[in-house]
Amino acid sequence: MSAAENPLVLFMPSGKRGRFPKGTPVLEAARALGVYVESVCGGRATCGRCQIEVQEGHFAKHKITSSVAHISPKGAKEERYERVRGLPEGRRLSCSSTIEGDLVIDVPQDVVINAQVVRKKASDRAIERDPAIHLRYVEVEEPDMHKPLGDLDRLEASLMRDWGYDRLDIDFALVPSVQGILRQGKWAVTAAIHKDRDDSAGTIVALWPGLKNEAFGIACDIGSTTIAMHLVSLLSGRIAASSGAQNPQIRFGEDLMSRVSYVMMNPDGREAMTLAVRAAINGLVDKVCAEAGAERTDILDMVFVGNPVMHHLFLGIDPTELGGAPFALAASGALAFRAAEIGITANPGARVYVLPCIAGHVGADAAAATLAEGPYRQDSMMLLVDVGTNAEIVLGNAARTVACSSPTGPAFEGAEISGGQRAAPGAIERVRIDPATLEPRYRVIGVDAWSDEPGFAEAAATTGVTGICGSGIIEVVAEMYLAGIISEDGVIDGALAARSPRIIENGRTFSYLLKDGEPRIAISQNDVRAIQLAKAALYAGVRLLMQKQGVAEVDTIRFAGAFGSFIDPKYAMVLGLIPDCDLAEVRAVGNAAGDGALMALLNRGHRREIEDTVRRIEKIETALEPDFQSLFVNAMAIPNKADPFPKLTAQVALPPRQVRVEGESGGRRGGRRGR
Amino acid sequence: MSAAENPLVLFMPSGKRGRFPKGTPVLEAARALGVYVESVCGGRATCGRCQIEVQEGHFAKHKITSSVAHISPKGAKEERYERVRGLPEGRRLSCSSTIEGDLVIDVPQDVVINAQVVRKKASDRAIERDPAIHLRYVEVEEPDMHKPLGDLDRLEASLMRDWGYDRLDIDFALVPSVQGILRQGKWAVTAAIHKDRDDSAGTIVALWPGLKNEAFGIACDIGSTTIAMHLVSLLSGRIAASSGAQNPQIRFGEDLMSRVSYVMMNPDGREAMTLAVRAAINGLVDKVCAEAGAERTDILDMVFVGNPVMHHLFLGIDPTELGGAPFALAASGALAFRAAEIGITANPGARVYVLPCIAGHVGADAAAATLAEGPYRQDSMMLLVDVGTNAEIVLGNAARTVACSSPTGPAFEGAEISGGQRAAPGAIERVRIDPATLEPRYRVIGVDAWSDEPGFAEAAATTGVTGICGSGIIEVVAEMYLAGIISEDGVIDGALAARSPRIIENGRTFSYLLKDGEPRIAISQNDVRAIQLAKAALYAGVRLLMQKQGVAEVDTIRFAGAFGSFIDPKYAMVLGLIPDCDLAEVRAVGNAAGDGALMALLNRGHRREIEDTVRRIEKIETALEPDFQSLFVNAMAIPNKADPFPKLTAQVALPPRQVRVEGESGGRRGGRRGR
Repeated sequence: MSAAENPLVLFMPSGKRGRFPKGTPVLEAARALGVYVESVCGGRATCGRCQIEVQEGHFAKHKITSSVAHISPKGAKEERYERVRGLPEGRRLSCSSTIEGDLVIDVPQDVVINAQVVRKKASDRAIERDPAIHLRYVEVEEPDMHKPLGDLDRLEASLMRDWGYDRLDIDFALVPSVQGILRQGKWAVTAAIHKDRDDSAGTIVALWPGLKNEAFGIACDIGSTTIAMHLVSLLSGRIAASSGAQNPQIRFGEDLMSRVSYVMMNPDGREAMTLAVRAAINGLVDKVCAEAGAERTDILDMVFVGNPVMHHLFLGIDPTELGGAPFALAASGALAFRAAEIGITANPGARVYVLPCIAGHVGADAAAATLAEGPYRQDSMMLLVDVGTNAEIVLGNAARTVACSSPTGPAFEGAEISGGQRAAPGAIERVRIDPATLEPRYRVIGVDAWSDEPGFAEAAATTGVTGICGSGIIEVVAEMYLAGIISEDGVIDGALAARSPRIIENGRTFSYLLKDGEPRIAISQNDVRAIQLAKAALYAGVRLLMQKQGVAEVDTIRFAGAFGSFIDPKYAMVLGLIPDCDLAEVRAVGNAAGDGALMALLNRGHRREIEDTVRRIEKIETALEPDFQSLFVNAMAIPNKADPFPKLTAQVALPPRQVRVEGESGGRRGGRRGR
Repeated sequence: MSAAENPLVLFMPSGKRGRFPKGTPVLEAARALGVYVESVCGGRATCGRCQIEVQEGHFAKHKITSSVAHISPKGAKEERYERVRGLPEGRRLSCSSTIEGDLVIDVPQDVVINAQVVRKKASDRAIERDPAIHLRYVEVEEPDMHKPLGDLDRLEASLMRDWGYDRLDIDFALVPSVQGILRQGKWAVTAAIHKDRDDSAGTIVALWPGLKNEAFGIACDIGSTTIAMHLVSLLSGRIAASSGAQNPQIRFGEDLMSRVSYVMMNPDGREAMTLAVRAAINGLVDKVCAEAGAERTDILDMVFVGNPVMHHLFLGIDPTELGGAPFALAASGALAFRAAEIGITANPGARVYVLPCIAGHVGADAAAATLAEGPYRQDSMMLLVDVGTNAEIVLGNAARTVACSSPTGPAFEGAEISGGQRAAPGAIERVRIDPATLEPRYRVIGVDAWSDEPGFAEAAATTGVTGICGSGIIEVVAEMYLAGIISEDGVIDGALAARSPRIIENGRTFSYLLKDGEPRIAISQNDVRAIQLAKAALYAGVRLLMQKQGVAEVDTIRFAGAFGSFIDPKYAMVLGLIPDCDLAEVRAVGNAAGDGALMALLNRGHRREIEDTVRRIEKIETALEPDFQSLFVNAMAIPNKADPFPKLTAQVALPPRQVRVEGESGGRRGGRRGR
């Protein structure tokens, strides 16, 4: 009988459940269980933000199959809302529908992760919303000579009473306008309340007359090359617009260390780069607002991530210390402040949250990627790699997570390679070499056909074939190895010159001619060495973390960032960038840093989660590790000298192992690039 | 034995006591008991802020008279401090002296209330220090590749460990400079930490390399006429400088309501007055800093009080609503923000605290005066009056406090009086009339002698005799009453013209000639009426509050503000400004609002105290009180029609009561002045 009078309600996707007396509004039940359902109007059936979907009476586990209506029919207020504003099929307003029997309720999670991001596994979590900014509609008592409380004080009292805050502060800048807004709204207003860390106290950061029913947030990943931004509804979680722009700091230096050098050499260098990146961010905000038809003043929260140098320059901090040992971060913890303090134009009360950095070369971007991929949330051992001038490497599972960076240098980005270039139309990105003839075929960014397919010449006439980008370099070196052109030690076999005109003598070494004509693109012995050095650095970092974890193999590999999106996992493994793994478990996750920023924007619990995780991550400094040198030397070989690749071998036919030629090791590189 | 091993330590003036094991540092004992002893260096015997005075072994109550040394002798560190910095006779550093036997310890309270303020009673509390800003010296771990915590994060960790904070935030503007200051200070720095409401969390608002041993605060009362400011050491409580300046808003309107009118008439009026008062405050800050040899960047905290119109204009809030019913304050509660947000130049991290307003015409100045005089802290019934264009009246004791304002108009300030002027050199401030001859004598501001004393003419040659100020007006009308020139209904007796040339006919009424020549100063019937109206308003407000409290008399009366400093309580009572009271219990307390601001500056507990008190004060709106009209009419008489003045009569010979002439009442004035 108790079950009949106190029906069971199950909320999805959280799975939270509880029994409530018949007649309890669904919104109230959700709050009682800590299920986050948005509401601006506070149960007046006017904002429409508290929509839910109802699966009447079907508990799979509990075998409840009654067909009696378990939720109240639509009342007058809800029908008025449906008539005026419209309600999607199957949706109800949770403030206006009451529990009348056992229910399964879906709380729509409208967050759609950016299309470029691959999220196939069912275990990947939807972002449950619990943003740091809430809109709260209230009706405020009019001034009364009998109770001479100020306008602001009556506003705060109404907010505390209706929305359960224990204490409210207000941004001082807003104080002078409160009385006017209250009168303009005829004593009904919507307040934006920022409540991040402290659960009982909030701060009024914006105020509108009447009902305000939309607020946006920005999630932004500041990369050395590209700045990527999402504009997101804080109320529905919907991504309203996404855009990207080149980081204008490139004109001060291509890679991180050249930007640090620029600061060291130029007294105004730091400020110039700070202003440049903030201007670019302001430009992107304009762009996403225009795309979504949003006003900048509707932006109330922002989350930023970036590597340590980007992080420091964005915040106006001198990054010089990051250029030399002990690579001291000026600030590693999460930071929270106002957008106006860094010159980002949004609502005057807009807040900024910056994720913590993990270590001197493992930044807030790596922290965000860690939050997005969540190695610490699962049992299997996940390797998370973000390749740039420095690779940021995280390895772990629920029990333990370790992280380091490794100085891969810019070779993977096409720098220091004779025919290298950035990934751009005209760049060779895919390469295949016929092991019999040693003839290559390749594909170029911007052209669908391979170079040996019909129509290639016509299509490539517009782009040209201008050079080879990072993924192309990895493939060509791996294919050269698979075709027997280079040994596992990376030496180009000059004897093959007799068999193929593609093998060309250059004094004491040989090159492989990938493309003749203008420009002529050849892979030299030095190019192979540069790739070997880069991949050895990455692989040595990975092996070091595997040593720390005491594991011989990893279960899953995630490539974060642009680099990871272009390379083929097979070639990455053939070349020995990454350890042996089932190829099906190697996946590019795109802008994972941006995803992490989005998660922190939409759920303040994720902020605490990554702050806590970053504190617990064990930071490994490769420069202090005695084993790193030998791991690096071993990693020069292709795939790698010391390690068997049983899973790879089972999937790809590798040439037989050779005896290694002594004296050919590239040796340990002299510290980090650019210094 | 326990007593011998755990000596008893009594701290004065708080009276807190406890037993501690021998060898406990005095500073530690003080902290354990919640006795506030300042310390910047954290027990390193370098800042010298933790000085105490020791009364060895003499508990008056406990009759301990042992002459054994009950405190440890000076150690090496303390001797070094004494040698280098000097230590006043009898002073010890509490961090370096340990308890060796029963002790009475004086914690010096260096606060000296401004000399103009009368504080004679022993019951008046010294301001125990517990400011919202503390300087905290710390030594920070150097960066270490093994523990890649950021500079800021190591700073926060050191502060939390050494000074017991649970959580620390930092002003974002400071973030970029942390790494440089740490290095400049060789990893030893002093942080200014703001901690007001929240006891566990603080905010780093400023940072200096090495030991920083002084910080200042500002306590400021923004009056309609005068702005008064103290510069105070937040570490010792010493008032370093005090100054005042005219409120430049006077050029927009003499009194409050004319300034409100100016805002209503001029679109830029509010902003112009806001900028004017802030500029004047900045000028005063310059002045007190120059006087004390302090830097503006050493100012870290500020407390402001003012009446509601001054409060609003200072904060940039439109005061128009205060000009008409329901007299709605835009914000009544205490406000806290940064000095930079209102354009007051101080340390970039400096904080501002503004006391709460009590009601639409009872402002933060009245709240501050209430804090300073503390009716709610005592059992006797205290009347606290601050007379201006509106009188702010507070009546109460520990059980209950009520407050109201009453529209006295500007007569008490010399306006609307034929010969009236502001209190300034040359103004008549004291008057005596010979009851036999009706001849007056008077004293003039800036001249010591009375007008009938030798040397007056010579001394007055420099000042002139230019007019009559508020206190002079009160005295002359009271003396006219005592001399029988006016009846208790305020009518100048024309019949006396036959007896004295001082009584002069002006058409249908008469004047009293106070001074002949240039300028000629006479008290007209209209002048007497203006004073009657003003005093009736004040007295009616007082009686209304007495009705609310259900008391027939008050125990003590406090006059706050400049007006109260000049008037003689006897004449105030003869005229019937204030109710019957023992004259010894009537006292002027000078700038009590400024004192309250000082208390809130030096002890954040006082902030909570007045916030709580203001919430509890019952606010009476005279316009809503049906009895106010009849109280006002009765109060037109001198001293007052309805009330006996037994205590006054016992102390001053009053003329016999007359039968009141009907139809002579001035009637209720039409609402508040200036509207």
